[in-house]
Amino acid sequence: MRPSHLIFCPLLPWIWNNTMISPLAPKNGFPSLPEIKGVRFAALEAGVRYQGRKDVMLAELCPGSAVAGVFTRSATRSANVLDCQEKIGGNTDAGAAIIVNSGNSNAFTGKAGEGSVKAICDAVAATCSLPEARVFTSSTGVIGERLPHDRITAKVGELAENLSAGDIKDAAEAIMTTDTFPKGCAAETPSGVKIAGIAKGSGMIAPDMATMLVYIFTDAKMNQALLQSLLSDLTNKTFNAITVDSDTSTSDTLLLGATGQSDAPEILADNQDYTDFRNALHKVMLDLSHQVVKDGEGATKFVEVQVHGADSAVDARRCAMAIANSPLIKTAVAGEDPNWGRVVMAVGKSGAMADRDLLSIRFGDILVAEKGWVAESYTEDDGAAYMKGENIVISVDLGLGDATDTVWTCDFTKRYIEINADYRS
Amino acid sequence: MRPSHLIFCPLLPWIWNNTMISPLAPKNGFPSLPEIKGVRFAALEAGVRYQGRKDVMLAELCPGSAVAGVFTRSATRSANVLDCQEKIGGNTDAGAAIIVNSGNSNAFTGKAGEGSVKAICDAVAATCSLPEARVFTSSTGVIGERLPHDRITAKVGELAENLSAGDIKDAAEAIMTTDTFPKGCAAETPSGVKIAGIAKGSGMIAPDMATMLVYIFTDAKMNQALLQSLLSDLTNKTFNAITVDSDTSTSDTLLLGATGQSDAPEILADNQDYTDFRNALHKVMLDLSHQVVKDGEGATKFVEVQVHGADSAVDARRCAMAIANSPLIKTAVAGEDPNWGRVVMAVGKSGAMADRDLLSIRFGDILVAEKGWVAESYTEDDGAAYMKGENIVISVDLGLGDATDTVWTCDFTKRYIEINADYRS
Repeated sequence: MRPSHLIFCPLLPWIWNNTMISPLAPKNGFPSLPEIKGVRFAALEAGVRYQGRKDVMLAELCPGSAVAGVFTRSATRSANVLDCQEKIGGNTDAGAAIIVNSGNSNAFTGKAGEGSVKAICDAVAATCSLPEARVFTSSTGVIGERLPHDRITAKVGELAENLSAGDIKDAAEAIMTTDTFPKGCAAETPSGVKIAGIAKGSGMIAPDMATMLVYIFTDAKMNQALLQSLLSDLTNKTFNAITVDSDTSTSDTLLLGATGQSDAPEILADNQDYTDFRNALHKVMLDLSHQVVKDGEGATKFVEVQVHGADSAVDARRCAMAIANSPLIKTAVAGEDPNWGRVVMAVGKSGAMADRDLLSIRFGDILVAEKGWVAESYTEDDGAAYMKGENIVISVDLGLGDATDTVWTCDFTKRYIEINADYRS
Repeated sequence: MRPSHLIFCPLLPWIWNNTMISPLAPKNGFPSLPEIKGVRFAALEAGVRYQGRKDVMLAELCPGSAVAGVFTRSATRSANVLDCQEKIGGNTDAGAAIIVNSGNSNAFTGKAGEGSVKAICDAVAATCSLPEARVFTSSTGVIGERLPHDRITAKVGELAENLSAGDIKDAAEAIMTTDTFPKGCAAETPSGVKIAGIAKGSGMIAPDMATMLVYIFTDAKMNQALLQSLLSDLTNKTFNAITVDSDTSTSDTLLLGATGQSDAPEILADNQDYTDFRNALHKVMLDLSHQVVKDGEGATKFVEVQVHGADSAVDARRCAMAIANSPLIKTAVAGEDPNWGRVVMAVGKSGAMADRDLLSIRFGDILVAEKGWVAESYTEDDGAAYMKGENIVISVDLGLGDATDTVWTCDFTKRYIEINADYRS
């Protein structure tokens, strides 16, 4: 039999979403995002799994749009991801479309999953007069269950009829699964190039995984190769520098579409416009990636981990991620415990070059440990007071070289266990 | 100031120890361990931190004893570990001593930590008439606080006077920190060579880390190089194949002393006695390593993860550890949820070569997924019934090659978070 009851209670995500918004959610709600010339959105209810909410979104990009993408490195990635990866970098003459559903991830659905992707792409291609090679799909939700793609293809006509330049918030809501708030961010360069992006992640109640989906749109004129290289580079400092629980989805997808409809000149490598655009895109990606962490399951604290003085960039990242993924450190943060001993432990286990007697540790601006021991000036009261804040910075200086890195995570609470262990109770 | 109040309540380990024994503890309590000719033990209360319990143990090995050791790979390992590593492999003429304290790990105590090790070694060497190079020390407990080694050296004379061949259970109890039960195991080869071992780990309430300490004694006649090579090899299949929370202590130490007092012939490589001894030692090490997992913080289930059909041994271990360390899988086991989708996720993120369509997954004997999808014969009721057991086997066949591996872990419960986050509340 097929596991149609893998989800014990399909309403649970909604009960959770509607009753508990992350305490780290932006105080002012979803931001006002500018329209991006050449992109239109539509979102509606297709009933893939959820009832009474939008669960499919379509974004249409005008002819000439370049699309860049970054995807999960999982060896068991979904049919949608494999299909998108093949299509990235293709001819831009015909424009493009992105269609995303929530409720079912179409992951680990064998050959049937590929059929579902094909069916959806064919329907969108026919309706929007696009080659099938320019239709990108994502699916997020329960895994291992066949995607009822007929419910999606049946709605493609209505989606196309409802396309509008202003509906990006609806799109952000349609892609949510166990998210407790929709995520959006925008920026504009001095020469007037606009960027607007939405994201979902990361939470799991049902056997969903913490899939992260991100769609960013800009009216920049930029060739695909340059756009792709910029996106890959910035991903390393943003979406690849966040972790909630060290588990990686089979469906993670980040697509960036550039319509070229801005009045600003084409962006070429190594000029001021490029630097401006890079900074603006970095800002949007960083903000969205932080929002994903702030919606981490059960999160009550946002944690920045800085590593300085590492022997190499690889060591800096390794050490930062060892700290950010350590259950002992994340539970200490949850308990507001300035437990610097666990930071020493994580540095030690990371595999990065380290010397106990050169290591120093700070919580915020407070010097906690140096020269292989607790700092003379440190008091446990200072540390404990600092840990009561909502934003925690753990900073380690390895004292060996010049390499630095920064990653972000959240704390690890009983609520995480409840969400992931007790959903059947 | 020095963090003398890093431990909020020094009684908490005892409240925990005395009121809650792991549900996975051996049903028959501490086993009866045979005396090992040439080894004597003593344990007593030195008041290093705890009151009203034994916290120091001394083991004395007769002249001619070979000592082998395996240690944490942490880059921030403790002064004791560094000292032991230097001494392993030394001249055996004079015998040896092992002295261990609980309550303070002497880790991240700067240069003072080295002084403490030296002071303890000197005291034991003088009292037991041994060269200082044959005294091995371990310390476990709070980190970052200066070890009050005077309390230990003051008791060395009394320890030496109380040495007896039969007190190994007292030794097992003296090295406990947040353990909920003492751990011991014994075996004997057909030719009458005896092995007895004790272990502590793994729990942390205070800023202790899950230090694992293991001391194994045998009357085998065996040269040090052969003993060391055997120990290192078997560690890979036992103590290096377990994980509670992926965090690694700065103090992990495993020492194996062979007195050569058995009437059986010397054990040489590649004969039947060697094979017998290897099997017996493997049994003891495996059993002790499993006891450590069964005392994992908050553990309610013992989980074996098997990987078959991997492309290489490295891939097999990588894949098995990715499953065993995944918070999503460990919380699913806690919730008795047969969540095979999370196993697919962990395989995918492990970095091991994998092909979705060749992968199969079993829970115990139940085939759950194959050919990239849930198995036709699988029912969620079967899976859910299996997950109610105390011992869970998760088995993955990657379908690529001949490499296999097995590792062990426990589930991940709210109690883990309570122990590690809420100890101040």
